[in-house]
Amino acid sequence: MFHGVVPPLCTPLTENGEVDTASLERLCGFLLDAGVHGLFVGGSTGEISQLTDEARATALRTVVGTVAGQVPVLAGAIDTATPRVLAHARAAQESGADAVVVTAPFYVGVAPPETRAHYRRLAAALDVPLVAYDIPSNVGRKLSVDLLAELAHDRLIVAVKDSSGDLESFQRLLEATHGTGVACLTGSENLADLALLRGAHGVVPGLGNVDPHGYLRLYRAARAGDWAAARAEQRRLTRLFGITTVADPARVGPISAALGAFKTALVLRGVVDRPDTLPPLLPLTESETEGIAAHLADVGLLPEADARN
Amino acid sequence: MFHGVVPPLCTPLTENGEVDTASLERLCGFLLDAGVHGLFVGGSTGEISQLTDEARATALRTVVGTVAGQVPVLAGAIDTATPRVLAHARAAQESGADAVVVTAPFYVGVAPPETRAHYRRLAAALDVPLVAYDIPSNVGRKLSVDLLAELAHDRLIVAVKDSSGDLESFQRLLEATHGTGVACLTGSENLADLALLRGAHGVVPGLGNVDPHGYLRLYRAARAGDWAAARAEQRRLTRLFGITTVADPARVGPISAALGAFKTALVLRGVVDRPDTLPPLLPLTESETEGIAAHLADVGLLPEADARN
Amino acid sequence: MFHGVVPPLCTPLTENGEVDTASLERLCGFLLDAGVHGLFVGGSTGEISQLTDEARATALRTVVGTVAGQVPVLAGAIDTATPRVLAHARAAQESGADAVVVTAPFYVGVAPPETRAHYRRLAAALDVPLVAYDIPSNVGRKLSVDLLAELAHDRLIVAVKDSSGDLESFQRLLEATHGTGVACLTGSENLADLALLRGAHGVVPGLGNVDPHGYLRLYRAARAGDWAAARAEQRRLTRLFGITTVADPARVGPISAALGAFKTALVLRGVVDRPDTLPPLLPLTESETEGIAAHLADVGLLPEADARN
Amino acid sequence: MFHGVVPPLCTPLTENGEVDTASLERLCGFLLDAGVHGLFVGGSTGEISQLTDEARATALRTVVGTVAGQVPVLAGAIDTATPRVLAHARAAQESGADAVVVTAPFYVGVAPPETRAHYRRLAAALDVPLVAYDIPSNVGRKLSVDLLAELAHDRLIVAVKDSSGDLESFQRLLEATHGTGVACLTGSENLADLALLRGAHGVVPGLGNVDPHGYLRLYRAARAGDWAAARAEQRRLTRLFGITTVADPARVGPISAALGAFKTALVLRGVVDRPDTLPPLLPLTESETEGIAAHLADVGLLPEADARN
Repeated sequence: MFHGVVPPLCTPLTENGEVDTASLERLCGFLLDAGVHGLFVGGSTGEISQLTDEARATALRTVVGTVAGQVPVLAGAIDTATPRVLAHARAAQESGADAVVVTAPFYVGVAPPETRAHYRRLAAALDVPLVAYDIPSNVGRKLSVDLLAELAHDRLIVAVKDSSGDLESFQRLLEATHGTGVACLTGSENLADLALLRGAHGVVPGLGNVDPHGYLRLYRAARAGDWAAARAEQRRLTRLFGITTVADPARVGPISAALGAFKTALVLRGVVDRPDTLPPLLPLTESETEGIAAHLADVGLLPEADARN
Repeated sequence: MFHGVVPPLCTPLTENGEVDTASLERLCGFLLDAGVHGLFVGGSTGEISQLTDEARATALRTVVGTVAGQVPVLAGAIDTATPRVLAHARAAQESGADAVVVTAPFYVGVAPPETRAHYRRLAAALDVPLVAYDIPSNVGRKLSVDLLAELAHDRLIVAVKDSSGDLESFQRLLEATHGTGVACLTGSENLADLALLRGAHGVVPGLGNVDPHGYLRLYRAARAGDWAAARAEQRRLTRLFGITTVADPARVGPISAALGAFKTALVLRGVVDRPDTLPPLLPLTESETEGIAAHLADVGLLPEADARN
Repeated sequence: MFHGVVPPLCTPLTENGEVDTASLERLCGFLLDAGVHGLFVGGSTGEISQLTDEARATALRTVVGTVAGQVPVLAGAIDTATPRVLAHARAAQESGADAVVVTAPFYVGVAPPETRAHYRRLAAALDVPLVAYDIPSNVGRKLSVDLLAELAHDRLIVAVKDSSGDLESFQRLLEATHGTGVACLTGSENLADLALLRGAHGVVPGLGNVDPHGYLRLYRAARAGDWAAARAEQRRLTRLFGITTVADPARVGPISAALGAFKTALVLRGVVDRPDTLPPLLPLTESETEGIAAHLADVGLLPEADARN
Repeated sequence: MFHGVVPPLCTPLTENGEVDTASLERLCGFLLDAGVHGLFVGGSTGEISQLTDEARATALRTVVGTVAGQVPVLAGAIDTATPRVLAHARAAQESGADAVVVTAPFYVGVAPPETRAHYRRLAAALDVPLVAYDIPSNVGRKLSVDLLAELAHDRLIVAVKDSSGDLESFQRLLEATHGTGVACLTGSENLADLALLRGAHGVVPGLGNVDPHGYLRLYRAARAGDWAAARAEQRRLTRLFGITTVADPARVGPISAALGAFKTALVLRGVVDRPDTLPPLLPLTESETEGIAAHLADVGLLPEADARN
């Protein structure tokens, strides 16, 4: 069910910080036209941790409505602990999500048996399929391959999104879940071709908002076994990924830098109206915006003339 | 406004995981009778990260109603980022909180200027006083003394709750906020007398749920300058704090161990009905419960006969 | 100069904890016969942090003498800070090392400009070529791609050994040092084929002590562009790498587990006499030894009959 | 045997980076005249991790010779693993050290049973008393109270130097080693009075190089039960400790900042000749030196006129 290129959608905003549904619809259309295999609403790239419950619902309903069943829609049900996640997951299900994506508990300090209990309880309580989201940079703990394999073999999850950046554990995951039907998706923008070479079922790249066609070329090359073409495309995308390190790290953290870059690029490409992010994220500067334009021009996503304005 | 002993309330639960308002009222009464100077609803001890929004509201309204203005009520507005915190803070204000308690952003990776922006935006948007909550174990970053001093001098916060365990930075905080009127409260159960000796305005000990009289004796001794008495009481309370390490760390994390112990002790003392915590926290075992009873008996909070049953 | 398969040699020991030079010579012969392109003496796998200065010198001189110029010999000059590293590096040079391998400073807390100064001073003071060793798990900090690229472009290092496990930064390193002649070597046992696909010049796998022929097949397949064969060999080696997780993690740390496994496997294969490691490392148990034998049999390195004894 | 004020000696250097024995003798004299109860040679403050073996021996022999039995001399035997520590400890014993100070293993990843084995083996192999040195910031792991208590009860250590900054665990240590005769010494400059109030047997403050008289006043006040005087002195010393944060953290790490400040202050006070530290540490700038002079003047350690030159 889950495979291919599944971008974690950015959430375009209006000037007063509300979900810009028109821009979001355009973004969905842009990605669907490019041929993506699914959409992930409410991941870290979607500023899930900054969106109020109302904004989460608006974003998800907008996407579900726009997609209209063409591809599966995954929805993040991201919160600290089981009861709060359950509430989000049920809301997502009601809004039409095809699966909900859930991290390990955070803020509350837990031992491994408690993380296991978290997923088992959610699986038991939910009717919608569950995707495990491994994102240690945000939650402070890694989902163990042992736990994920157990959940996979017990048919409690349908997929794993691995945003750990650890390709070695990802390949152990692929090995350990082999034959269960569980889809292993990598969140890595820059190791996508290698993850596919190892057997990944799909990629969930934040940069896929900006250049879905690139990831689709990469994915199709990989599926066709043309690894040289996949690698060439990967190299180009990695160059483009340079947009995420344009911002000054003394001023803004890595999330402002990356999400600001994605949204700025989408504005420059004419897909969404504004590059705004939600607080505590801070906006990029004018010169940083110019740096992003230069990167886009460099990989052919912006006419050089545009990049200079 | 904020000083003295301000226990971070446990949230008693019914068998099906809802807020047990009757037990919560009894707990409030127990603490008020003991003479506490304030109550903090919705801290980590209150399982804020496990409570749904509805449960958060129920707990806060119950406490505000029971307290009826006798002491200030602080309410945690704990969430990942500014817009979500703002929503909780407004809800808390409507429920009658006298102040809202806010951590650094978490889940989303931020740089120091973004944490500063977080507090500044909240202070600007809220009518209710703001308390900064420094809890690096849960959010993964420490609030710097520089930032807290800046917020204090700009009158954007009224208090700091320091749960960092770092007494050295706490004393720098006391120095740096001197004269601003900002209350510096320690969350440390075991260094409370030393924090008061350094000039802390109050203590916010989770263990204060179990033995408020002990912390009040300690606080009054400190206020009277009787540091030997304060220390003797501290030593007794530190012995009692042993209840938080009874549980097997291979089975449950430190939060299950501590909150399970507090609630179990409150059941044993006849204050609340059940020791249940919310998932992903796991319940303590029967033998762990016996261990807790033994600790209570050891410090005179339970007749030895009861401890053996 | 540095490329291909360069195993980080284990240091076989006698019963009383001295370097077993006869076994070490046999190990060198075993690896040279297999066709390795170089040998790295005194890495983490060589228990450099456990060896006294005398033992370090004995091991290096034994290897230099045995190799007799057939392949380059790299020597770890591993210590906390610049003057101590310098002393080790000079000793290694005198013992005939072809290059010295140096980590970031450790134990002493440094800022990035101090790490830069460390390498620059060493390069200025030494006549022997310098290899930068990136091993954040041991030293607590990662060498930045920026620093390594600067050192490479200034011709201050001849190679980088990357044991960070971070393939994404490794590919940025390859990109950033392109054209400098600096060799980028991966320390990863399980991502070796992927690192070579990205352009790595060589591999430095601890497991290469146990199965040099496997890594040579992998390397030659990669050089020939036969990535399917490389991957098949990698998969086999990754299965074999299971020997490093046989030991009980409650009893011994990851280094005892891995080095104990490598040495035990070398005993089982008849290459060295004893599996001893130096304190504080603890020996493996008999049943763990049996587990290792089973893994060896599984990949065809031990007759099944032997594995059962 | 070990109690009171035991400064961890700075190691003064000549222009070419050798131990400046004349300055070191003056520093010893300065501290002995002030009335210190012991001297610790070769701690982090003594740049142990930067000193070659020869320099370590020179520093220790100089101090032992100068002290001539007036007070005990503790010597750091700081290295990564058991055999290397053993070699240093034996050398220190031959040079006349009264005890050797040993950290947990570092660089090599170990599990708790291996740290236990480390201390037990050293205690069995050495004739000189053993002091456990808990310094997690440098070695990456904390010595558990359980292990230290076990070693204390088995008479394998004579003292603990706690540089963890964690006063809560320090008080558990005091409790757990009570009655064993093991001395518990705090390495904290700024919590010294509180540690003594809790029962610490002594203090090992790096800042004690600069102002031994201050720490002696503090210690004597504490011994006399005059906690108000102890606190007043502590407050003054904490103000002086501001010298360690004068340096720009973007340029140098915390060790360069602290040791550079201590040595600069000793030069300004006329005790040692030069402020040099060893690489990779970087020297302080002229304006940073002025900032340090201003701090000294502020607490009365330098005539204001001198501070302005």
